[in-house]
Amino acid sequence: MNETMKRQLEHRTIREFKAQAIAPEVLNQLLEIANRTATSNGMQNYSIIRVTDPEKRKAIAAVCRQEYIVRAPEWMLFIVDVKRNADIAKAQGEDLIYARDMDRFFQGVTDASLAAQNMTNAIESLGMGAGFFGSVLNHPDAIREILEMPELTFPVVGLGFGWPDQAPQLKPRMGLELKVFENRYALPDDILKEIEEYDQEMQTYYDLRDANRRVDSFSKQVVTKLKNPIIKRSKIMESIERAGFQLFIDE
Amino acid sequence: MNETMKRQLEHRTIREFKAQAIAPEVLNQLLEIANRTATSNGMQNYSIIRVTDPEKRKAIAAVCRQEYIVRAPEWMLFIVDVKRNADIAKAQGEDLIYARDMDRFFQGVTDASLAAQNMTNAIESLGMGAGFFGSVLNHPDAIREILEMPELTFPVVGLGFGWPDQAPQLKPRMGLELKVFENRYALPDDILKEIEEYDQEMQTYYDLRDANRRVDSFSKQVVTKLKNPIIKRSKIMESIERAGFQLFIDE
Repeated sequence: MNETMKRQLEHRTIREFKAQAIAPEVLNQLLEIANRTATSNGMQNYSIIRVTDPEKRKAIAAVCRQEYIVRAPEWMLFIVDVKRNADIAKAQGEDLIYARDMDRFFQGVTDASLAAQNMTNAIESLGMGAGFFGSVLNHPDAIREILEMPELTFPVVGLGFGWPDQAPQLKPRMGLELKVFENRYALPDDILKEIEEYDQEMQTYYDLRDANRRVDSFSKQVVTKLKNPIIKRSKIMESIERAGFQLFIDE
Repeated sequence: MNETMKRQLEHRTIREFKAQAIAPEVLNQLLEIANRTATSNGMQNYSIIRVTDPEKRKAIAAVCRQEYIVRAPEWMLFIVDVKRNADIAKAQGEDLIYARDMDRFFQGVTDASLAAQNMTNAIESLGMGAGFFGSVLNHPDAIREILEMPELTFPVVGLGFGWPDQAPQLKPRMGLELKVFENRYALPDDILKEIEEYDQEMQTYYDLRDANRRVDSFSKQVVTKLKNPIIKRSKIMESIERAGFQLFIDE
């Protein structure tokens, strides 16, 4: 196994960083790497918003309910961006309804996610650490307002990074036998029995987010999360419509 | 810049591979790396289906309209998988409506995309090449049928990989000044002028997919793609509903 792969197997979410800025040329290299990521149809239906304004960081942290966002040396939002291509078409006299379709939207979600992960691999290759913020979807409309995001743009995931100031325990993962299938989807019959070992492993894990409190077994976490959804997050389709996308387009 | 980053800047989509199998232990390492990728809320709402059956490969290639899928040494589908956690909850006597919500769905899309890109970085670190297949969304229902995917699962992106048997030209990308913003989304006013250089660059690029035919400028490609959508892809929300997800949940 090579060094890149060994490092990937050591991936941890990093939430606290040293107060050390990232050199502009390094930052530029990281962005060039994100820009080189594969993109659906070559259409590049995504963009990146770098957030340096402390007030905007604070407002985002409130949406995400993760106050440490204000302290990350760098924090960027990866977004669906169909607006740019719609503008390029409009400038050529074409106002096309399919710019609003959900296919375009999903291309942007995938593009943004691939770029965020690719950049994360580069960040970690430099010995820095990073953490994703799916919590921007707690309230997508608020995020769009804070960052003045126009129609046909939508938040996907935030990324905070810098030099780590913590060394979290490696978080246990479900075994491959429950996650990788061959030729057809097939879960084992007795799922609770199959997940027992992972459940036990998870209970030995201390989540740094919660003051070193032990966490529940995975099975119990699943029930807790499904019973207590963040209601605004469940309403994501309404936010997507408000951003100008059309869930269904009549021919 | 380190070797990992240099390699990332050299990323190309690889579509043709040498007829050389990947050793089982390497394959397992790649899957373990995918499994280590960050996942939303730790919930791991994604799975991977490895497709080795030549008949299933053929059927998938027909959906994707990319016949070279049958020839890739490895081909895997990354999917949204909320079914597993829904089953884990059911086995504890809980049949919870929020397993069907779109927040869960989007967590799965992001999780699957991050894992696919992370695995791609590992693949490329070994000198192998890879290509993504967003074209599985040409007809998600057909893909679900071929791979016997149950309710609460949905295709996100395919990944073919192996030892490259081609050396494609590096595909030009739009400049960072059009894709990276600071603190607020702000496109330049005269987008067509700003994109002129990229348009010219794109016309020097030969796409190996189309028998070395020169490609259109980016601006023209945008219009062509928005005028000629794949209608089934535009209907993705209907497929997502058929997979058992609820776009809107009433409280």
